[in-house]
Amino acid sequence: MGEFDLIRRYFTRPTPQAVLGVGDDCALLQPRPGMQLAISSDMLVEGRHFLSTVSPAALGHKALAVNLSDLAACGARPLAFTLALALPRADEAWLEPFSQGLLALADAHGCELVGGDTTRGPLNICITVFGEVPPGQALLRSGARAGDDLYVSGTLGDARLALEVFRGTVSLPEAIFAQARARLETPTPRVALGLALRGVASAAADISDGLLGDLGHILRASGVGAVVDTSIAMQLIATPAEDICAGGLFSLEKLLDYILAGGDDYELVFTAPASARAAVQAAAAQAQTRVTRIGCIEPAAGTPAVRLVDGNGVALARQFSGFDHFA
Amino acid sequence: MGEFDLIRRYFTRPTPQAVLGVGDDCALLQPRPGMQLAISSDMLVEGRHFLSTVSPAALGHKALAVNLSDLAACGARPLAFTLALALPRADEAWLEPFSQGLLALADAHGCELVGGDTTRGPLNICITVFGEVPPGQALLRSGARAGDDLYVSGTLGDARLALEVFRGTVSLPEAIFAQARARLETPTPRVALGLALRGVASAAADISDGLLGDLGHILRASGVGAVVDTSIAMQLIATPAEDICAGGLFSLEKLLDYILAGGDDYELVFTAPASARAAVQAAAAQAQTRVTRIGCIEPAAGTPAVRLVDGNGVALARQFSGFDHFA
Repeated sequence: MGEFDLIRRYFTRPTPQAVLGVGDDCALLQPRPGMQLAISSDMLVEGRHFLSTVSPAALGHKALAVNLSDLAACGARPLAFTLALALPRADEAWLEPFSQGLLALADAHGCELVGGDTTRGPLNICITVFGEVPPGQALLRSGARAGDDLYVSGTLGDARLALEVFRGTVSLPEAIFAQARARLETPTPRVALGLALRGVASAAADISDGLLGDLGHILRASGVGAVVDTSIAMQLIATPAEDICAGGLFSLEKLLDYILAGGDDYELVFTAPASARAAVQAAAAQAQTRVTRIGCIEPAAGTPAVRLVDGNGVALARQFSGFDHFA
Repeated sequence: MGEFDLIRRYFTRPTPQAVLGVGDDCALLQPRPGMQLAISSDMLVEGRHFLSTVSPAALGHKALAVNLSDLAACGARPLAFTLALALPRADEAWLEPFSQGLLALADAHGCELVGGDTTRGPLNICITVFGEVPPGQALLRSGARAGDDLYVSGTLGDARLALEVFRGTVSLPEAIFAQARARLETPTPRVALGLALRGVASAAADISDGLLGDLGHILRASGVGAVVDTSIAMQLIATPAEDICAGGLFSLEKLLDYILAGGDDYELVFTAPASARAAVQAAAAQAQTRVTRIGCIEPAAGTPAVRLVDGNGVALARQFSGFDHFA
């Protein structure tokens, strides 16, 4: 199978919204009058963003999910994406499920595959996604203000827990592991929540490198600090603590590491004025997505920008840092 | 140097046109009212799209040039691009010249770096570029009609010739090689010509995989055939034939291979009605880009879709094919 057959068979589909899809030098989009275009690009490399053991269908899902998560963090509605793919070889047994996993998630979000590139090389998946947002309504990292509440969506830490099972540092009962593994391999981008938070949240980011790392981006961009109640954060992991600790390899302290700095969560961290608590809950209900208030924003007060406290407001001594591909 | 320092130092720049550039979950563009957005994505892999010997500055130039070439083929005006980069390590001695080469070409075309991704992995450069074009004015592959003239811009075959010098199958005098090498490593995207051909050309494509391969895309999309005068095509290579053949390793026949199917030319192949000859020449003059009429479009007549003839109109027996990454 040649390059162009491969593109035709697996990656060429009708594009009812786009003016022109796969098959010319460029794709053509006609933005709706007045709308801004939100753009994000993520590159996935084997061994860093996914394990060689992941199923091609899950990988197709995840490659688009991490990009949709960036649109969600901006409150943008998905429109279209391009896929650039380097493959060691044109393997139909891989391409078929990969494209199915990818396009199923694309269809679920009305996000059209409009173009891209394929080449031979070490496996590398680069997706660039396009969304639309009315001018001035994009959720930015820079809007957090002292006194705002601090929230996260969904659950945190389960993806890292699954990764640690693969690494052999933790063991879990099979059914429990399957759930954590799904969080690692097929994350759910919080697109509906991002849309519902337009005009409600003051700042937002997606959690890809760990809560503290991505919260740090908001704090730096906004020139503020934050306090996080770890007694609430501890409850954000979906996997039951008794199952995690049953293997004897684990401590609750390590669990907090995974929740605060585990990575690969693809939830949203966001802020909103205290006056907007009802609106935040309404947005969560509309998006059918759990939202938890974990702390609040403070005036900037040095390093670290995040103060971790226990349920009594007493500071924790421990330090955490987000994921850095080159650190 | 960490991931975020790297992005700040080498890839964060003012974006006077874009609403929001590097540093948030998404970039934000505000399309001009009514304009369509042209999008293209190209992934460059070491050993396939460039040699390990290429200078980082030239590689930065080429990575964007091949994307701008796609915009040129559509007649779109460059606006912005994203850069996703997998690097074996964060090497400042590489990043500094790479970013300079990349951004110098970006500046020359007013094309803003608005976002992207960096990760550790086998060297891979994926750029997605955005341009604008008025509705209905994009140059497509599908517009060629029987009777149209067939043109190419610039020169063909020199990039492949330089590659063959690197491979050791050809030798060239040093000054002559330097010119061919520049065609391979720092191609000039024909953006000005693409813009000037709006409303003049009936179809266009960029020549990245060899003239016959990319012309083939136009013919398939348009449902037509073509005849190419190889006596004219033979003159499209810039490197003097006496220098190429001086090494004794070469034949004029092989030279025609490189011109028709060499790859990496990043010129435009386009068609226009015979009534538009003066307009084509005016577009070429406006863009200060050489344009050569090499044949014409015919009704579709089977395989191969391109008939190669000599200066007397007599058919050549030889077959050629374009580059295919998986063939």
